[in-house]
Formats: sequence, structure tokens, C-alpha cells
Amino acid sequence: MLKLGLIGAGRIGKVHCDTVMTRVQDATIVSVADYYEESAKSLAAQYGISHATSNHRDILENSDVDAVIIASSTDTHSQFIIESAQAGKDIFCEKPIDFNLARIDEAIKAVADAGVKFQVAFQRRFDATFLRVKQAIDNGEVGTPHLLHIISRDPAPPPITYIKVSGGLFFDMTIHDFDMARFLLGEVEEVYAMSANLVDPAIGEAGDIDTAIITLKFANGAMGTIDNSRKAVYGYDQRVEVFGDKGSVTNANQYPDTVTLNTGDSVRRGSLPLNFFLERYAAAYQFELEAFVDCVVNDKPVSVGGADGRAPVVIAMACYKSLKEKRPVKLSEIS
Amino acid sequence: MLKLGLIGAGRIGKVHCDTVMTRVQDATIVSVADYYEESAKSLAAQYGISHATSNHRDILENSDVDAVIIASSTDTHSQFIIESAQAGKDIFCEKPIDFNLARIDEAIKAVADAGVKFQVAFQRRFDATFLRVKQAIDNGEVGTPHLLHIISRDPAPPPITYIKVSGGLFFDMTIHDFDMARFLLGEVEEVYAMSANLVDPAIGEAGDIDTAIITLKFANGAMGTIDNSRKAVYGYDQRVEVFGDKGSVTNANQYPDTVTLNTGDSVRRGSLPLNFFLERYAAAYQFELEAFVDCVVNDKPVSVGGADGRAPVVIAMACYKSLKEKRPVKLSEIS
Amino acid sequence: MLKLGLIGAGRIGKVHCDTVMTRVQDATIVSVADYYEESAKSLAAQYGISHATSNHRDILENSDVDAVIIASSTDTHSQFIIESAQAGKDIFCEKPIDFNLARIDEAIKAVADAGVKFQVAFQRRFDATFLRVKQAIDNGEVGTPHLLHIISRDPAPPPITYIKVSGGLFFDMTIHDFDMARFLLGEVEEVYAMSANLVDPAIGEAGDIDTAIITLKFANGAMGTIDNSRKAVYGYDQRVEVFGDKGSVTNANQYPDTVTLNTGDSVRRGSLPLNFFLERYAAAYQFELEAFVDCVVNDKPVSVGGADGRAPVVIAMACYKSLKEKRPVKLSEIS
Amino acid sequence: MLKLGLIGAGRIGKVHCDTVMTRVQDATIVSVADYYEESAKSLAAQYGISHATSNHRDILENSDVDAVIIASSTDTHSQFIIESAQAGKDIFCEKPIDFNLARIDEAIKAVADAGVKFQVAFQRRFDATFLRVKQAIDNGEVGTPHLLHIISRDPAPPPITYIKVSGGLFFDMTIHDFDMARFLLGEVEEVYAMSANLVDPAIGEAGDIDTAIITLKFANGAMGTIDNSRKAVYGYDQRVEVFGDKGSVTNANQYPDTVTLNTGDSVRRGSLPLNFFLERYAAAYQFELEAFVDCVVNDKPVSVGGADGRAPVVIAMACYKSLKEKRPVKLSEIS
Repeated sequence: MLKLGLIGAGRIGKVHCDTVMTRVQDATIVSVADYYEESAKSLAAQYGISHATSNHRDILENSDVDAVIIASSTDTHSQFIIESAQAGKDIFCEKPIDFNLARIDEAIKAVADAGVKFQVAFQRRFDATFLRVKQAIDNGEVGTPHLLHIISRDPAPPPITYIKVSGGLFFDMTIHDFDMARFLLGEVEEVYAMSANLVDPAIGEAGDIDTAIITLKFANGAMGTIDNSRKAVYGYDQRVEVFGDKGSVTNANQYPDTVTLNTGDSVRRGSLPLNFFLERYAAAYQFELEAFVDCVVNDKPVSVGGADGRAPVVIAMACYKSLKEKRPVKLSEIS
Repeated sequence: MLKLGLIGAGRIGKVHCDTVMTRVQDATIVSVADYYEESAKSLAAQYGISHATSNHRDILENSDVDAVIIASSTDTHSQFIIESAQAGKDIFCEKPIDFNLARIDEAIKAVADAGVKFQVAFQRRFDATFLRVKQAIDNGEVGTPHLLHIISRDPAPPPITYIKVSGGLFFDMTIHDFDMARFLLGEVEEVYAMSANLVDPAIGEAGDIDTAIITLKFANGAMGTIDNSRKAVYGYDQRVEVFGDKGSVTNANQYPDTVTLNTGDSVRRGSLPLNFFLERYAAAYQFELEAFVDCVVNDKPVSVGGADGRAPVVIAMACYKSLKEKRPVKLSEIS
Repeated sequence: MLKLGLIGAGRIGKVHCDTVMTRVQDATIVSVADYYEESAKSLAAQYGISHATSNHRDILENSDVDAVIIASSTDTHSQFIIESAQAGKDIFCEKPIDFNLARIDEAIKAVADAGVKFQVAFQRRFDATFLRVKQAIDNGEVGTPHLLHIISRDPAPPPITYIKVSGGLFFDMTIHDFDMARFLLGEVEEVYAMSANLVDPAIGEAGDIDTAIITLKFANGAMGTIDNSRKAVYGYDQRVEVFGDKGSVTNANQYPDTVTLNTGDSVRRGSLPLNFFLERYAAAYQFELEAFVDCVVNDKPVSVGGADGRAPVVIAMACYKSLKEKRPVKLSEIS
Repeated sequence: MLKLGLIGAGRIGKVHCDTVMTRVQDATIVSVADYYEESAKSLAAQYGISHATSNHRDILENSDVDAVIIASSTDTHSQFIIESAQAGKDIFCEKPIDFNLARIDEAIKAVADAGVKFQVAFQRRFDATFLRVKQAIDNGEVGTPHLLHIISRDPAPPPITYIKVSGGLFFDMTIHDFDMARFLLGEVEEVYAMSANLVDPAIGEAGDIDTAIITLKFANGAMGTIDNSRKAVYGYDQRVEVFGDKGSVTNANQYPDTVTLNTGDSVRRGSLPLNFFLERYAAAYQFELEAFVDCVVNDKPVSVGGADGRAPVVIAMACYKSLKEKRPVKLSEIS
């Protein structure tokens, strides 16, 4: 039974806590740290975890803890990764690693120096549907990929307070799509980004965008697009399409049931799509943590490591540069 | 935390054990009994359950046990229900209650006399898709039901050794469909059954059938059919359709992913449907046990009780009579 | 250019007239006869047909006419078939041939004696979707058929005045489904019919039924069901399913567009299914007449002949007998 | 009965000829002209058209001809439009009007001066599915549009000889998508184009591209993409998605049947999508010509006029400029 310390008891920290404590068989959380001690205590109490603290050092210095889950705010990730690595703890860290490439590189170096495991939390890579899409590519079922489309729309924007500290749409939301693009088609060489503030003027006033189309050129010659919106009223919209010389692979959204109603008014689904990431990726959150636990316990290499955490940050930076300069930007321009 | 004893460590006993021990939050199994002591011990060991026995009385006499799950062979159900009731244990029992109406009535009486909870394991009633179908009827979304169709096909027949003790297709497999028919449209008044042995001659040699169509007349004036086959090569086929004066409600099968592949050969799903009941009803097995635990802990009436366990047995008997006499049979002819 | 005479300018006569005059390349209608001369004249005028009459003999005696389309009321079919055959005209006749087997046999004999072509109008056999279902069976894509389901529901009942002369649901509506059952799985040996009057009490008062479930046993050992309703509020519902030892084949209803709308209320089709037979079978009406024209012009045997017109009448009779005697009825009981 | 002259008996000329002669009720073609007289004669003979010529002036000088269909090679369109207008003939002209804006403007002026009708052949605007998409926008079913995606892929590239004179992918193929973008979301202000030669090196050697992604900025603030490939092995891929603040509307491809096959290998469609434009847009070709005939006969304004023919040419030019200069290009830069 792997003993984990959880650093960060906010929204995503709670997701990981619930996942570990109710569904991951071979691991348990033994301590929760949060800057707001009450948050740590409350979450620990809910899942019968005996230790809670406001100081993440309590976890790092606890010899009982084998590995940490870093789910604190993004600006603390690099620091906590470095400290955790130095404390010899294996690390599972939320995305993005950081908003600053130099700090990301420091963190990756610290991990390498310490020889600990380091997995970045891109849970979509563990989703059965996206794994099947990947498999279709790897198996040659669609041949050589020519075109990729990712549609990724949230059901509703986060609070403006969150928007302000999120790092912006590309770092907060599109980062998952940049990762998916790399997961499916490999390295990106150039981007061109367009954006708008169409969902809520308050998002624009907070300095962010809420709607975007990004085009991608891949090293292998393929091209692609990412479509983002902060507000799809019908629910979480998570689709990809890969088109190649032997065919294409697509996916549909997921629903809580498979019912269809036929009436004099309409032929309609029994329900709207699963509303958001908690429902849509419930199993993926479990599988990514089980994979991490398996890597730690059985000393295997992680499948989503530091380089995979760094690359989408570079793409996000190139996209912001593209927006600012209104032109396509090569990733090689980002340093 | 409700303490459960599990009686029966066979196929379905293992399903309930895994469900309770890994997904039901407010209950745990403290003892496992099986006629084959090794089966009990092995299952107990796998889930870290401290007590295992070949004698179910050990469970009934254990004052630590609040309630029992009866998952032993059908011929023992009535006896174990009676003993459990007399021991004051709340009871969750696998279907069918028994092949004999008098014994079922004895069991129901024992439960009533003891005032314990008694839930029969028709897990499909707890499946999100079938609940949505039920809701469509209850909400009036399809108006007054006129017609019902149930398609219920297994991916492959069980071993002939199992066929021989199963009670036959109608008691073993169709019993779930009889329950679904009642769940959705209420009481059945008359049946007409047709059957055949088309899947495997060995099933016929064992005295059973493997393919059937049953027509139903309901007390409310609606009519319906059930379609059964022991072997759908594409996987577990679980569909219903309810047609009423304001519309119809249908469901589709469930798949491990939502992928579609488009090639020069075909446009096809990424995978076959979920293969069998363990995958298809994984969540329903959890929800039915959570409902039982909730009823016991919070002293609520169960939603699937003794009368619901008895009624489909009567329908099965009427179907066998119909097969034998090659005519429609009223349920009132069965006593 | 084959010259046709149309006998009967009612609902289905108009359909055939429009089909021939606007879409069948190698045939034209040169004369229209209807008991109500005004109907004949009006239809002829609409399509620029030079001759219209109240007397079908005018058509039969017209040496310019190569073949006739009989679309008059069912009680006149046999007589008109016999007269047409004796006049040496090839014959395309609406279903059913007659309500009386002896008259059907007389008509078939007259056709054989005259050596003319005789095609019965079961247009569903020429529909691309049902042809693909048939092909799946013929190709072995589903293996040996075990089970068949036909769902066949009209969007709304015809006027009560029509109901009264229609011959009843089984002769008027289910006759197409009996034909489809034979088309797909071959000869029927036994039927069991259940019916109800659930759509409109006036239909019951007119002596007819509006809702039915019929079970079928086929000569090849397969079993099946037919589901009929006179009123599906969402539109014309035309589905079949054939299940065999290597798989199953199903079809979906057809829509005027392929649009899906996703909103905060629902995920729904852009439109309801095609409303009724004119829309749903527009192409099939063309193909069946083109096939007839091809058989006449190129002296080929018709694919849907007298025996195919007779057989579903026998099934309908067996179904009425089953309803009356509340028991399964073998077709061999009908003479 | 409107009398039409057809100028151009090549691929698309044959489509229009077949459409008029077999499906458009109120018009007929009385003369066919083609530079290759044999082509004109052969097509005329096939449809029983009495006059064929190698000189389009024979049509323009024929007082019997009410209107012309211009389906000759693109480099002749402007000249033939001007001559037809001067001859007082109403004009239905294939896309694109021309590769040169000045000539397009001359043609539009000639039409205006002569006061004849002038319809450009963008048949997709008359397709039931795309009309339903448009209606969803116009009705407010998706609210204010934010995002548009058009996927438009041919099943196979045309011959290299055709590629060489086609004007290139954007003028030959994407022109329809540019028109669809305008039809659905209004005027385009800026484009950014990416392209590749992935399908066949011979296309690149002929100076053309075969794969492209174009991003669009609309005057109303919305953004969009167009995805093109010359080779989708599964068939003609014609999809759009419009996403707005109240929902989204999508469409699926069309198939020759609605069949699904479920086997031990896969769950698949009975057939591949309709293979190409002749099958996919058969009805749309009819509807656009019926609309033109209606405008001429009843003196109504055409729905797709000169300005609609000019605009997508400007977009195509902007796309080529974008490709060349590797940057986003405003339409205002094209003159």
C-alpha cells in the first residue's frame, strides 16, 4: 500500500483525494497539506485521513510518506517539485508545471538529480476513448495522419476570481489540448492563434479570452486545429478527429445513459452530455493515479514525464506570442 | 459502517464481494461462507476479510453481522432466507428466490414475521439507462404505454454443467426480463412463449432451450415481447423499447469508448459492445447494494421486495406451461 | 417507351402516376381510368395525359396500351387482373390481390393462362435499406437467422371511412410486414396474434384494431415478431432486425436531414423522421415500377409475382383466426 | 415550360442536363453547345435534345432559348456571361465566375445593364441538411454564432490533367466552402491558410496542393475553420458545425441506407457514405435549377447572385496570398 501525501486541498486536490481514497486499491493518502489549514483538515476529516497541516514541509519530512500529489496553485508547483525531489519523494504534479520555462527546467533538473518518479497530470491520456483514438493511429488504422481537430469546450466559465490567477485560457484550459495534440500526432512546430471574448465581457475585463481557434503544424507534416470555448450550454464537449491516408477516427461525447426519446416534438437523447470533467474523466483520474502508483511500486518509467509537462507550456507561450503579433509563430522562437 | 455476511462465494458472490469491498462506502463484509470452504477462504483472503467458513450458520450466529447477502445456489435461497430472518438479519438475496412458489411464500412469510429488510437482486432496476426509461414513462414523456419490447441476449451460453442446474432459460436468464417488464409496465396477465434450440445442440440435450420469444399482455392493456438468445456474437445485447400514445423511448447498447473509425472498408465503432453483465452492470451492482445499505441503515422500505421476487417466478412458470401446452397461459392459471 | 394504362386514380394511383410521369424514364401513362370520371380526368390533366375514362375497359381495349397498373379498390383487383390478362396486358397490381383466396387463385390462373407479366406492388422490397438487410442475410453476414423483428407503425390512422373498407389492419397495413417477413426469412408456418384498440375508440367501433403484436414461426426454424400501431406521433416507424448465429442487422428510420442540435435543453435531431410512406418510399415506388418496366420490355420474370401476392393474404387470414380463437394457428389450417 | 440552352457538355454540364431533362418539371433543354461538337451531339442525343452545336452563339442567337446554363471551362465564363446578357438571356453559371476580379466585375456589370437574371451554381445552399443548419442559425436555435467548422473532403483527387487547369484547390474545391461559410455566417474579413501536398506528389508537381486548413474571421466577430483533403478513402465528407451561445448544430454524412451490422468483428454501417457530389447533392442540383427556373418564370430575384459569385473568389485570392506570405490576410488587401 503506497502512502501518499497530498499538497493542495482545492478543487483538483479534492478530486485526487476522492479518487485515491475510494477507487485506487494500492495507495492511500496519509497526510493533507493546504495553505489554508481548514481546507486541509476538512478534506482529511471527510476521508478519515489522520494528518492535516498548513505546511507542506510536514509531508516532505514525514518518512512514512512515499510519494506526493502536488495539487496546489500553479505558482507553487516548481518550488514544491524541487523540494519534494530533494526530500526523495516520488511526484505526481498537476498541470501546468509552471508559467516560466526556466523554473520548469529547474524542476525537471531537480527530479533528474534526485532520481525520483515525476508524472504530470494529463488525465485525458488515460481515458478509454482517447486511448482508442491513439491506438487507431498507432495500429495504422487511419494510415499516416494528415489532419487533426480537437474540440474542447467547457460547460461554463470558472469564477472571475479564478480566471484572474489561472494564467489565461491557453495555460489553464488549452494546455490539455496541446498535450492531446502531442499525444496523438507528436511534436508541434508552429502555431497560429486567434481569439475572442464572446462568452462574458467580465472575462475580457479580467484580461483573458474565452473563445479561441489555434492552428498547428506538426513536425511530421500534419496540420491541425484546436477549438476552445469557455461555455457550451449543452455540456462538456470533448472531441477529436484524426484524418489520415487510410481513414479517420472520431469520437462522440459521453452521456449518462444511452436513451433516445421519440415524440411529436423531437427525437432527442434522454440526457445532455456529461456536464464536466469530474463526470467525464472520473475513470481517467483513477487510471492516471493507478499508473503512477504502479510506476512507483514496480519501479517503471512514467508515461507522462517532465518533457511532456514542459512541451505544452512552450506551445501556450507560442500561442500568446501569435495572438500578440498576429502571425504564425514557430516553437523554436520560444526559449 | 454496516457489517455484512456473504453466503455463497461463486460467480455472483464474487461480484457482490468486490462491489462492497471496493465501491460501497458505508458497508463492509466481515465474513464469507461457502459450502466449499476453500472458495470462502480464497475470496476472504483476496479482500482482506478476516473470517471464512463452510457453514452459513456461523454468519447467522455472529452478532457482529448486521445483514446478509445470499448468493448461494438457488435451491438453498428459501432455506437461508428463513434462517436469516429468524436470526434477525436483514437480507439481500439473489434471484430467483426459488423454483417453488410454496417455498417462496414461506420465505416471504418468515421475512414478514421477523420484520427484517428483504431485497431481491434485480440490479437492472438500478442501471442509469433503464432508470431513464422508467422515468420517461413515469413523467408521461411517452404517454400511456401501448407496446413494450425487451431484447436480452447473452454473448455466449454458460457451461453445460451450469445449464443443467440453472432451472432453465426462463428461471435463469429471462427472470431479469420478466422483472424489467413489471418494473416498466406493471403486472403481467397472460403470456405466450415460443422457444428453440438453435445455439448449441448440447443445450437441448441438457433439456434446456437457448432462443425464445415471449409475448406478454399487461393488466393495463399494453402488450409486449421479450427476445432471448444465449449467444449474440457481438456482445451483451440489452435493449428495451416502450411505445406509447405520446412517443417512444429506446436505448442503445453500451460501449467501452465512443470512437468511430471511417476507412475504405467500413464505418465502424471503435469497439464491440460491453461484453457481459459484469461490465454492463458494474455501476448497477454498486447502486443496488448502496440502496440496500441505505434501507437498512436508515430504516427505509426496500424498493425491490419479496413480491417483486415472487412475481417473475410466476411468469416463468406460466411461460413453461405455455411452451408445453402450445397456447397462451394466464398467470391466474399458476398457483 | 412502354405505354401504360392506369386503373384507379385514388391515393396510391396518384403515387404511381406521379412516379411514372416524373421519374420512370422508359414508360409513360397514356390513359387513366377511374370509376369517378372526374378523378380520372383531373389526374390525367395534371400530368398531361391525353385520355381519361370512367371505364377500365377503354384501357384494356386500347391496343396502344402495353401494360396496366391496377390501383383501384381491393374488391375490384381480381376481376381487373383477369380482364387485363385476357386482354393480353402485362399487369402491375396493388396489394392485396384480394380478400378471398379462391378469387386470388382464379386471378393467378388467368395470368398464367394468358402468359402475361404480373407483379404485385410490395415496394419495400425495392427500398435500398431493406435490400441491404436482405443482402446481409443472403451474403451470410449474419449467419443463419434465428430471430426477426419488424416494427411498422403509421404516423396516424386513416379516416374511419377508409378503415371500414380496408379489410382490416392485417390486410391493409400488416400485409406489407407479412411480405417483408417472407422476403427476409422465407415461408411462415405458424402465427399467434394479439391485438388491441388503443389509438382511437372509433376504430374499434368500426370493427377494426389499431395495435397488434404478431409472432411468427418460420419453416427454417427461425422465430419472429411484428409490431404494428396506427399512430406513432413521431412519424413513420419502419424498422427490422434480423439476428443470426454470426451477428445481427438492424436499420434506423430515415430523416429529411442529418442535422443534430445541441442546446441547454436537449441534444436532438434537426427534424422528425420522414412522416409517411410517400416520403419514406419515394425511391422504392420508382424502383418497383422501373423493375416492372424492365421485366416487360426485356421479357424477364418479375421478382414479386402471384405467389408472393397470395402468401401474405394467407398469413393475414391465419392471424385473424388466431385472434378469434386466441391460439397459435398454422398456415396449413387456412385453405 | 422554360427553354434552356446548355453551354458546356463536360462533367458538370452533363449533371445539369440530366437534372433538367429528368427531374425539373417546368424546364427543358433545347440546345447544347460544346467546343467539342461531338460532346454536344452525344449529350443531346442521349436526352433527345434536337439541337447541338460547337458554337455557343447558335444558342444565344436562338430566339427560342429563354435562358442559358453556362457549364463550360472557367476561363470562358465571363465572356459567355457578357454575351448571354447582351443577348437578353437569363443566366445560370457554374462556379467560379472567373479567376480574375476585373472580368468578374465586367460580367456582373453586363448582367446589371441587361437586366437579366444571374444565378451562380452553389448547389449546397439548396441541400436539405445545410438548409436546416442555416435555419437553426436564422431561428436563433444556436444563438449568436461564435465558431464555425467546415469539413470538406473529396473521395479521390481529379486527374492531374484536370488539376492543371482547375485554378487550384481553393478556386476549384474550397470555393464551395467559402460560399458555405458566407451562407451560414456572413462576410469574411480575414483568412489564414495552411496547406500541404500529402495525397499525391503528382499534385504538388502540377503546382497544386491537396490538403489545407484555412481559418476565417467574420465581420460579426465569429471565427471558423475549413478543412480540405482531396482524398478521404471512406467517401465524400461534407460536414459543418456552428457553435453559438445557445448551442451548436452539426450534421453527419449521408449513406445509401440506414443499416447497421453487428458481428463478432465489428459494429458497422451497412455501407460507406455516399461517394461523391453526384450522389450527395443529387437533390440539391435539382432544387437549385428549380429555384432558377422559378425566378425566371415568375420574375423573382435570385437567391445566389453575382455578389455571391464574386465574394468567394476574393476569399480564395486572400488564401493564396496568405499561403505565399505565410501570414493572415485581410480581404480588404485584395482588389
